[in-house]
Amino acid sequence: MFLELDGHGPHYSQLTRALKSAILSGRLSTGARLPSTRVLAEELGLSRITVLTAYEQLRAEGYIVGRVGSGSYVSTSHAEPMLPRRAPAIPGTPLTRYAKRARQLADWSITTRHCDRRLDMQYGRSQINPTLGAIWGRELAWASTRTRLEYASNQGLPALREQVCDYLARRRGIRTTSDRVLIVSGTQQAISLTSRVLLDEGDEVGIEDPHYFGAWQQFGAHGASLQAIPTDHEGLVCSALPAQAPRLVMVTPSHQFPAGPALSLPRRQELLRYAQAKNCWIMEDDYDGELRYDSAPLPTLRSLDDDDRVIYVGTFSKVMFGALRLGYMVLPEALCDDFVNAKYLCDRGNPAIEQAALAHFMEDGGFERHLRYVTKELSARRRELIAGLQQYVGDRVQIADAHAGMHVTVWLPDYGHEQVDAVIAEAHGRGLGLYSIAPHYRKPPTVPGLILGYCGLSRAQLHEAMQLFGESLDAVDAARKPLSMRRHSA
Amino acid sequence: MFLELDGHGPHYSQLTRALKSAILSGRLSTGARLPSTRVLAEELGLSRITVLTAYEQLRAEGYIVGRVGSGSYVSTSHAEPMLPRRAPAIPGTPLTRYAKRARQLADWSITTRHCDRRLDMQYGRSQINPTLGAIWGRELAWASTRTRLEYASNQGLPALREQVCDYLARRRGIRTTSDRVLIVSGTQQAISLTSRVLLDEGDEVGIEDPHYFGAWQQFGAHGASLQAIPTDHEGLVCSALPAQAPRLVMVTPSHQFPAGPALSLPRRQELLRYAQAKNCWIMEDDYDGELRYDSAPLPTLRSLDDDDRVIYVGTFSKVMFGALRLGYMVLPEALCDDFVNAKYLCDRGNPAIEQAALAHFMEDGGFERHLRYVTKELSARRRELIAGLQQYVGDRVQIADAHAGMHVTVWLPDYGHEQVDAVIAEAHGRGLGLYSIAPHYRKPPTVPGLILGYCGLSRAQLHEAMQLFGESLDAVDAARKPLSMRRHSA
Repeated sequence: MFLELDGHGPHYSQLTRALKSAILSGRLSTGARLPSTRVLAEELGLSRITVLTAYEQLRAEGYIVGRVGSGSYVSTSHAEPMLPRRAPAIPGTPLTRYAKRARQLADWSITTRHCDRRLDMQYGRSQINPTLGAIWGRELAWASTRTRLEYASNQGLPALREQVCDYLARRRGIRTTSDRVLIVSGTQQAISLTSRVLLDEGDEVGIEDPHYFGAWQQFGAHGASLQAIPTDHEGLVCSALPAQAPRLVMVTPSHQFPAGPALSLPRRQELLRYAQAKNCWIMEDDYDGELRYDSAPLPTLRSLDDDDRVIYVGTFSKVMFGALRLGYMVLPEALCDDFVNAKYLCDRGNPAIEQAALAHFMEDGGFERHLRYVTKELSARRRELIAGLQQYVGDRVQIADAHAGMHVTVWLPDYGHEQVDAVIAEAHGRGLGLYSIAPHYRKPPTVPGLILGYCGLSRAQLHEAMQLFGESLDAVDAARKPLSMRRHSA
Repeated sequence: MFLELDGHGPHYSQLTRALKSAILSGRLSTGARLPSTRVLAEELGLSRITVLTAYEQLRAEGYIVGRVGSGSYVSTSHAEPMLPRRAPAIPGTPLTRYAKRARQLADWSITTRHCDRRLDMQYGRSQINPTLGAIWGRELAWASTRTRLEYASNQGLPALREQVCDYLARRRGIRTTSDRVLIVSGTQQAISLTSRVLLDEGDEVGIEDPHYFGAWQQFGAHGASLQAIPTDHEGLVCSALPAQAPRLVMVTPSHQFPAGPALSLPRRQELLRYAQAKNCWIMEDDYDGELRYDSAPLPTLRSLDDDDRVIYVGTFSKVMFGALRLGYMVLPEALCDDFVNAKYLCDRGNPAIEQAALAHFMEDGGFERHLRYVTKELSARRRELIAGLQQYVGDRVQIADAHAGMHVTVWLPDYGHEQVDAVIAEAHGRGLGLYSIAPHYRKPPTVPGLILGYCGLSRAQLHEAMQLFGESLDAVDAARKPLSMRRHSA
């Protein structure tokens, strides 16, 4: 009997696969008697135990019948041989419109790339509190023995929803009740559920320019017609909102992502009046609104919303850590049931133990302590960053900032886009990872800018990083000086 | 100054809200000087600290300017008053097609109801191992300090994907590599992602009758055109598959859900040939395929699939616990990138700590030990259940079973649907929760049946439950006897 072993894994697995293949292809026909284990072992140069194990496996899977000693036979239920293997698989399969759009939009590099330099200023790193892993581990262990392990509420653990309500009332001026709160896996899922509930294919969505790329991708893949609305130093330019209302406007009022400014109070009111007049929904993405340093926070849109049309989205990805995958939505009454339905249909709710751990962490005060630590530490890093900018970079950059969050955006009005690319390349050569803001725009800004994430680096590292930034600028300045000299002398 | 406190929460919050409302409505106009804290405290009968706290809050939020002592003024950025509050909110908002369909399908009672009887035989309870909570807590604590807390791979932690590959090779005869495995939140999310990637609105899906209701709901809400294909004692009736191929056929080959039989090997081959001939995809939902007791397992469709068109879905909800929210898909090469894209867009991946804990649990052998315990315990409960059926119920029921899983389906061919409803009511009266199989069908079966979930009850409880089931049948038999007597004597 010819059996070709494929060389992957233990011998008995190889033999099992080879025999299956012989049976399914019809080379070993129905009812055929297999060689005895002794004979086959000798034939193939394998131990008898190996052959016995393979036969046992085939018997357990119904390929062969009979017992060792009285002979093994190919089971009659394998009567019809399979068609031969075809490759490549299904080349002509039509893609769905969603999959096509997702492929077109699938440039994940913007949100997930690392340039892997020693000092990396990528936005979104969140491991600020070195003891959080251990603290969180204790919370998880605590919750594991106190949580029902069965399917939980798809709307989210009631205890966590209650804690979120308290937190929003204290920190964000939002009054709500737990039946209006939906626990989600983070902002990305909030956007995905919102697409499901609010947008038919072709419906229009207004989104800030620049914006969180994952939102643009999700709305786009869903089939929404996206309109990028410009922003300035007061955030979304409300006067640029379309006369024909979209179904939804998505904004980051606390800290425009990623450009930096807060949406001014007059603009907040203008946006709410627009939504009311045009009968559209607003999604308020408050991704890092609680991380504020030395300025007074503005009221959230949701807290100003007398008309119940703001969908508020918060996340623990920034204040806790990205791998947690927990966030929350505060929903208008008219949409609440539909979002809870959609959450059920999408994944039946979030893991219960992590929700119980977080509820306990919040109730117990541990979360507030962590938040104070993080705010203090980030504030110190931010000061270090800005001091370093002043010392080494000076007035070659302008800072656009809402005194919040985990990054500072700087503009370089005296440089062209290509020169800033050269600065980035110089920085990379010096071990500093810098990131341009341009990929976050649909319509690239006239002035080039950089996003300086200060979460992943210590204060000492930030000082060094700004020194390297300054050196990188010096290098580019030196290279272009002859040009301007020439111009002056011309 | 007239200020109405709303009575919710601490006094300072009430006062803050009342002042905000006065400012936003224009009753306190821009630039107006607020009363001193002392005067307002006296006027409202509040402590001065309360008023100070409220003013501080308003100052922090940018509503007022100035300092205590020199007077507080309404900030000029509140120039335009808000429109008055309208209720109810947005009554005329059109629902999306998805939301409309989800509302129509939103009878969650089938999958989530409990009748809350002392002995409850609901399907899907999974807390069999009483030490699992503590064991799992230790794994989580272990993983918390060893896992990067930043955003992880949206395809799933590589270590867990590797463990899933090993596990599938050993337990389910599936050979795959970790780049073809996608970690998901469970079967429901697998269905949701499959809808996104494979189905445009109106595309046809073949699904077994009976079936998991969450699949019907998700495909239906997504806009698929659903065709229920009948099943019999060999599982899906392949000859009933439509001549015009659907895009996708979803099946539960190991243990038809919820009716019980395994898809026979000839039918497996017939289904694969059908998919190949018609160029459609198959989703193999192997929700409890590893929980087998005294029969040899049949090969999974995926392991027989030479044509790379089977999407294999496994879940840890049954073998671990429902609140874990972790499962996995083995993807055809042609679809892999599209599913990973869709996972990113839906939620950016599952929590990293739980994935790391599970990978360690699997690598360390703890998972196999747990699985052996669960299999042994469930097997003993199943035997107890069947012995109890034989003792108290006898040949009044027929057992349809693949010797697998966490429930046994029984048919009552001598009873009408109304009589079985009466049996259920009798059982409820005796403290026993019984569940009809009928709601899981589109086309109700001619013979009534019951799903007996044996996960939530101990062996002693199962014995008692079968005794109560027998008594409930006796009561209904007694009530109908006179009828049949009368018929005989007529």
